[in-house]
Amino acid sequence: MGSDFSEATATDAVVESFAETPDARLREVMQSFTRHLHAFVRDVEPTQGEWEAAIGFLTAVGHLSDDRRQEFILLSDVMGVSMLVDAINNRRPVGATESTVLGPFHVVESPARALGDDLAEAHEAPRCLVRGRVLDLDGRPVAGALVDVWQADDQGFYDVQKDDLAPDLRGLFTCDEVGRFWFRTIVPLHYPIPDDGPVGALLRATGRHPYRPAHIHFIAGAAGHNPVTTHLFVEGSPYLEDDTVFGVKQSLVRPVRQEDDEETATSLGLPNPFQVIDFDITLAEDRSPTGG
Amino acid sequence: MGSDFSEATATDAVVESFAETPDARLREVMQSFTRHLHAFVRDVEPTQGEWEAAIGFLTAVGHLSDDRRQEFILLSDVMGVSMLVDAINNRRPVGATESTVLGPFHVVESPARALGDDLAEAHEAPRCLVRGRVLDLDGRPVAGALVDVWQADDQGFYDVQKDDLAPDLRGLFTCDEVGRFWFRTIVPLHYPIPDDGPVGALLRATGRHPYRPAHIHFIAGAAGHNPVTTHLFVEGSPYLEDDTVFGVKQSLVRPVRQEDDEETATSLGLPNPFQVIDFDITLAEDRSPTGG
Repeated sequence: MGSDFSEATATDAVVESFAETPDARLREVMQSFTRHLHAFVRDVEPTQGEWEAAIGFLTAVGHLSDDRRQEFILLSDVMGVSMLVDAINNRRPVGATESTVLGPFHVVESPARALGDDLAEAHEAPRCLVRGRVLDLDGRPVAGALVDVWQADDQGFYDVQKDDLAPDLRGLFTCDEVGRFWFRTIVPLHYPIPDDGPVGALLRATGRHPYRPAHIHFIAGAAGHNPVTTHLFVEGSPYLEDDTVFGVKQSLVRPVRQEDDEETATSLGLPNPFQVIDFDITLAEDRSPTGG
Repeated sequence: MGSDFSEATATDAVVESFAETPDARLREVMQSFTRHLHAFVRDVEPTQGEWEAAIGFLTAVGHLSDDRRQEFILLSDVMGVSMLVDAINNRRPVGATESTVLGPFHVVESPARALGDDLAEAHEAPRCLVRGRVLDLDGRPVAGALVDVWQADDQGFYDVQKDDLAPDLRGLFTCDEVGRFWFRTIVPLHYPIPDDGPVGALLRATGRHPYRPAHIHFIAGAAGHNPVTTHLFVEGSPYLEDDTVFGVKQSLVRPVRQEDDEETATSLGLPNPFQVIDFDITLAEDRSPTGG
């Protein structure tokens, strides 16, 4: 460290203070963080009052974070950092289904369901058939792939946001021998992220809304393949153009279509015609040394 | 905002999301923060596990912060940000006394004291005379300047860190007609910043110590002059070369000398010879429109 602080030498002094960090990765991270944090401070030249406001904001974000509500993750989300970290960690070959954020609502285990089950027994809204296949990059079905599904209801709420104890609108499916999965559900509504805390205040102060477009969460995986955490986005939903957590990839947007198919309707107990969303998922092979 | 997230377009999309911020300064700060935060993420490419560790660290820092303990300020301190913000906000003409951080211990009002008073009545250690003059840039005395002083004791603790209720080692002095101030006290010891929280854990993990060199805090001000918040650092103290909050400026280091002056010793009730630290403070004129 330098023994004479000055604006000119400050950043090098702090970088140097981390030089003896035993763990090389932690050293790299802290030295990079120092350089970028100081560059931000030098760029905006905060007043003492602005610095105090920043300290107060971060403190409020910390105070609101617990096992049920994680305001720092929300801050990471609205700053686009969660999606950026997701993208960096999930670079995939062309053709594989793209990833998006896990989100904060995968907090309970999805119950195992049979193909065709209704995830929305507690709900009145019209049913929609969601179906697809899990495929490899060559278009071959991945027999027995696991597909974990969770979603908000037609009011925009997840089960864990309500006082209900039973899992609702969640299911873990095992694909059939030709990689197919299908289930009945309701079409979810767009919804706001929790906006009664400091992150909500930040969104309001910056003229941003707190909404995410309607989506259904998926995690799909199978032996020998890289799992994918993703969403199916509902075509025509508001906020597809300006998801407040920057989660939308156009390759994941699917229409809700009307289908006229008496046989399928009868076998699933649906009216005819019925609503359907088709969503195939393509997994890349796991080529890591431990893959498989 | 973009409607198709990708690693390539992510930063521009988040910057653009802040474009309609009504307050121009907040817009500038958030857009700059976005660019620097994303640049850091792109630089280190955190794994999901590292991102989770960062969220957990920030949450723990928030949880430990309250009215008595501010762990986010501590984090700002050990990252050199507090000193950098101080430097940016206190660019001074050559010759003016340099500033350093306020620190977290100026939380109680210093009691008004008479020139020559003893700040350390509750302490046994040998007295030291601290004396100086408040001057302007032309070397003229600033009559009646106010000098606020606070310090740790010879064990490295401030009064507010102990259960004592009475203010100790604090005083607010009014300089005489030729700008002089003087008081009796004890020489403070170097001390660690609070290191039982996540910031302390960060220092340990990065091979850094938590110590600050021995110092006495000053805020000096007078009508028509810019006030200065600064320290007197004790020459020869450990950690002058590597203050964990990067606060040291060489221009603020002063020796503790032995002085043989029977008349002064007698008038102040000190043994002869006695310890003395001389610390003149030079204030720049306030040239702002509201200065005066």
